[in-house]
Amino acid sequence: MTLTQEAPARAQQHKAPRTQASLIVQGEDRTGIVAAVASVLGGHGANIVSLDQYSDNPHGGAFFQRTVFGLDNLQAALPAIEKSLDEKLVGEYGLTYTLRDLSVPKRVAIFASKSDHCLLDLLWRHRRGQLPVTVSMVISNHPDTAEEVRGFGIPFFHVPCQGPDKSAAEAEHLRLLKGNVDFVVLARYMQIISGDFIEQVGVPIINIHHSFLPAFIGAGPYAKAKERGVKLVGATAHYVTENLDEGPIVEQDVVRVTHADTAADLMRRGADVERAVLSRAVLWHAEDRVIRNGNHTIVFA
Amino acid sequence: MTLTQEAPARAQQHKAPRTQASLIVQGEDRTGIVAAVASVLGGHGANIVSLDQYSDNPHGGAFFQRTVFGLDNLQAALPAIEKSLDEKLVGEYGLTYTLRDLSVPKRVAIFASKSDHCLLDLLWRHRRGQLPVTVSMVISNHPDTAEEVRGFGIPFFHVPCQGPDKSAAEAEHLRLLKGNVDFVVLARYMQIISGDFIEQVGVPIINIHHSFLPAFIGAGPYAKAKERGVKLVGATAHYVTENLDEGPIVEQDVVRVTHADTAADLMRRGADVERAVLSRAVLWHAEDRVIRNGNHTIVFA
Amino acid sequence: MTLTQEAPARAQQHKAPRTQASLIVQGEDRTGIVAAVASVLGGHGANIVSLDQYSDNPHGGAFFQRTVFGLDNLQAALPAIEKSLDEKLVGEYGLTYTLRDLSVPKRVAIFASKSDHCLLDLLWRHRRGQLPVTVSMVISNHPDTAEEVRGFGIPFFHVPCQGPDKSAAEAEHLRLLKGNVDFVVLARYMQIISGDFIEQVGVPIINIHHSFLPAFIGAGPYAKAKERGVKLVGATAHYVTENLDEGPIVEQDVVRVTHADTAADLMRRGADVERAVLSRAVLWHAEDRVIRNGNHTIVFA
Amino acid sequence: MTLTQEAPARAQQHKAPRTQASLIVQGEDRTGIVAAVASVLGGHGANIVSLDQYSDNPHGGAFFQRTVFGLDNLQAALPAIEKSLDEKLVGEYGLTYTLRDLSVPKRVAIFASKSDHCLLDLLWRHRRGQLPVTVSMVISNHPDTAEEVRGFGIPFFHVPCQGPDKSAAEAEHLRLLKGNVDFVVLARYMQIISGDFIEQVGVPIINIHHSFLPAFIGAGPYAKAKERGVKLVGATAHYVTENLDEGPIVEQDVVRVTHADTAADLMRRGADVERAVLSRAVLWHAEDRVIRNGNHTIVFA
Repeated sequence: MTLTQEAPARAQQHKAPRTQASLIVQGEDRTGIVAAVASVLGGHGANIVSLDQYSDNPHGGAFFQRTVFGLDNLQAALPAIEKSLDEKLVGEYGLTYTLRDLSVPKRVAIFASKSDHCLLDLLWRHRRGQLPVTVSMVISNHPDTAEEVRGFGIPFFHVPCQGPDKSAAEAEHLRLLKGNVDFVVLARYMQIISGDFIEQVGVPIINIHHSFLPAFIGAGPYAKAKERGVKLVGATAHYVTENLDEGPIVEQDVVRVTHADTAADLMRRGADVERAVLSRAVLWHAEDRVIRNGNHTIVFA
Repeated sequence: MTLTQEAPARAQQHKAPRTQASLIVQGEDRTGIVAAVASVLGGHGANIVSLDQYSDNPHGGAFFQRTVFGLDNLQAALPAIEKSLDEKLVGEYGLTYTLRDLSVPKRVAIFASKSDHCLLDLLWRHRRGQLPVTVSMVISNHPDTAEEVRGFGIPFFHVPCQGPDKSAAEAEHLRLLKGNVDFVVLARYMQIISGDFIEQVGVPIINIHHSFLPAFIGAGPYAKAKERGVKLVGATAHYVTENLDEGPIVEQDVVRVTHADTAADLMRRGADVERAVLSRAVLWHAEDRVIRNGNHTIVFA
Repeated sequence: MTLTQEAPARAQQHKAPRTQASLIVQGEDRTGIVAAVASVLGGHGANIVSLDQYSDNPHGGAFFQRTVFGLDNLQAALPAIEKSLDEKLVGEYGLTYTLRDLSVPKRVAIFASKSDHCLLDLLWRHRRGQLPVTVSMVISNHPDTAEEVRGFGIPFFHVPCQGPDKSAAEAEHLRLLKGNVDFVVLARYMQIISGDFIEQVGVPIINIHHSFLPAFIGAGPYAKAKERGVKLVGATAHYVTENLDEGPIVEQDVVRVTHADTAADLMRRGADVERAVLSRAVLWHAEDRVIRNGNHTIVFA
Repeated sequence: MTLTQEAPARAQQHKAPRTQASLIVQGEDRTGIVAAVASVLGGHGANIVSLDQYSDNPHGGAFFQRTVFGLDNLQAALPAIEKSLDEKLVGEYGLTYTLRDLSVPKRVAIFASKSDHCLLDLLWRHRRGQLPVTVSMVISNHPDTAEEVRGFGIPFFHVPCQGPDKSAAEAEHLRLLKGNVDFVVLARYMQIISGDFIEQVGVPIINIHHSFLPAFIGAGPYAKAKERGVKLVGATAHYVTENLDEGPIVEQDVVRVTHADTAADLMRRGADVERAVLSRAVLWHAEDRVIRNGNHTIVFA
């Protein structure tokens, strides 16, 4: 118990200042890339705020770099910086890059079902200013959380999704999402996503799976965990691909359980891990800290 | 992602069946206590569901036992069981005991301030049926969370508490609490509690302190942690005594931080630990799993 | 850094006093078992030092209880106690039980291969008095660790085990083990154990698998973990059954890794988890804290 | 259990290739430092293998960068690189730097006392090729571990250190250390180190304290932890300064304990944390991953 009031966490602590941008560079590793990036940015008067890089083999392996830089009048300068990057990084080094103004938060749609723990945790972190995203909408196949979601000032759409044929629901999803979001989060949305949908939606989809993958792929992981008698249960946030539960892993964590925990206890303990793991994955994705590389991720957390 | 809907966690999973009771026994250890307890309960037809015991020294140390037993017509049988316990445990063995019908949830008042993370986490868990308590009221020295709390169907009382003299506020607190609650939770209530109040309220008070006690006692622990350069920050749930931050510890946990985390980052990371630690402490207290022994706790978790 | 010498950890801290015994009881749950056990022990003047019990369903499920009790002249009294247990627990309640004098440490053989981390960790802990076992021998299919093992005063036997036919090696193993050990520990022994051997050796076998089972069953789990891109690697101690890596799990743990860790890094980080997990499993088995129940374990840790 | 032998961890996995060097740069942050470093290194044909940087405030705060680069004929090129760094980083930017050939391992002396767990863990990791240092000597005030240390092929010196006057022992220490080591590790060396000694030895000293600092400063932390009733015990590796237990923290960790753990149990559980924490701190120091900044550390782990 403290005697006096602490200064409140600044609500904007995770909103990047208007003058910062992130630059993701990737391609084949070779001598001089870090210098080339730094020299382009320096040439435009930018100040490097943070820089992370990783090469899976310094001799011609795959190279990944995340740079955050600050610059006054950033928006005005972006086209010129892109031109320099095209010439230097693409032209001379054969790399690819993504440049993004961090003052423009990514727009996300959250899909949920009946379970509200992951959904509410994301909305609450967002309200506290800890998730630098715009939550454009929540879509659910159950109406239960409508009032609570709208209480956060966020649009809620109920799209029923029963029976084996999901095509009508998915068409409705696409109509809502197209042009409106930069990524999608499945916050314990208990429905299969078709390959067709993944392709058409055209933005990354992050799912939370309620097990420590690759253990207990598929339905009912807590029941399977109880059946196998494991001593830890976990959760995995991953990008969704056509292969169920096999997409690139962003984050994982576990919690200890005992023989005395029932399957319902595992579900309850695991729920805390699920929301923690998903919120970290969403935060990192929102801040461009996750780079996909085939079925792997580079996470500059 | 799972293909099909899992069976929902049973909302009543933590509500003890109406036929169960907890029996806490403590006193000087001597041969035969476990047998005496079992024989009393067996004599009334009760079935022992779980039993935990601890002795800090089998040769005359302090003995503690928690027994949960089931019995049809429990309420009708309680007076007779108490009579037997009085004769056997108190009379013959010189022990003390507490017997409680687990179908009657403990009533709790939650004190909060501006920070909502611990408060909301408790209310969410309660709504999901994961905290077997009755939340009788929320009391806050700030009006900010009133609407949200009332959205859970729980009474909210705003009791301002400014200036050095807290006596008026404490008198109001006592008026609200007296006879209405079985324990109090300080969910980041950032005000000193007077020894007088602790005595008059007459029920246990659980506080969450935002550090790994005994490190960083008092105000501003995250700022102190940043200043000291620690690599982990933590939180501690403890019973409140007259000595600030020195009461018996119920639960603690930590999270890893780095040099790159600001004091605001520590506060944000620590908040997740605070709410996890406090929710465990409240759950265990609600289920009679915590026994106070001087400045220590026995936790049969 | 401390100013003065602390009292050294007592070397005998884990050697149970000569007057203690453990009693494991299991069978179908019904009212009165705890009282029956306590009354038998009390009838012989025994003092219950610790008691743990678990029932997977109070209404006729499986019941498990571990009781440690103290008694002067324990050895002289054991036959009489067994007679009472036979009459009461077996005869009246239809339970089975195991009674063991804790002053007689279990005898263990450790199987190892080239990797020395699990082997040495067990030998160090044993030398510090932290593993209440007698290490009867170390058997390895490689001679590399012979000198180091013998430096601990422990017999080392080199039994080569090449080629697909292990029968000659297993015959030699059985010749060494028969009558000499109470359990076997496979401390990263990288050879298949035949079902025939498991049956003939007739004592429990604990293996450490270098993954978080059921993820990455079989050979090369660290390479598989790297391939899948997991963010944690783990280890699992389990009892060996005919089905590879599918026996009852005793203990598991994990450690965090990143994209920057190579498969060799995973192996190095995982090695710390392996030795920690195995040492806990061996300690608990040595103290009769693990009860097998089909493919599950009850661990009263 | 795996079926086949895995490829062994390469013994050299942590020996940096002969052609790599580390460059630590620190000073006041300003635009262009990363580019300047990269351009100097690129100008000499060096390939940046890894780069970490941190600024506590991009607008004129303190800046820290660790760069590892590869270069053929590194040793021949170092003087020219140093000349360029002097001109560019020191002359133009007012920074300081340290440049080190990573193929030359740092030389360390380990101080120990009776407890062998931290000492043996370091020696064993070193033998496995996981600590890129040269262990020049072990110094102990007790002769107990002499044989075991020498079994690792490492010189052992017994320097008794009784009574309040440590000056004779410290003089002997200095005679042994002077010119022979690059840093010192106190591996549970239970003696006060004088400020005079710290000054004269002239190399960094890393200590492992057996508590989660700043909790339980000074002697007997496990007894104090038991007395306070904490639910976690920990260990802290820190640089030694004149102020006891108050030097810059390099690494910390904790492990869960319960009311049932005696002070001896805390000591046993804590020992595992101590050796883990100390080994990480020594590894990071050996690889130039730790930068001291007043009473803080920047750890690029």
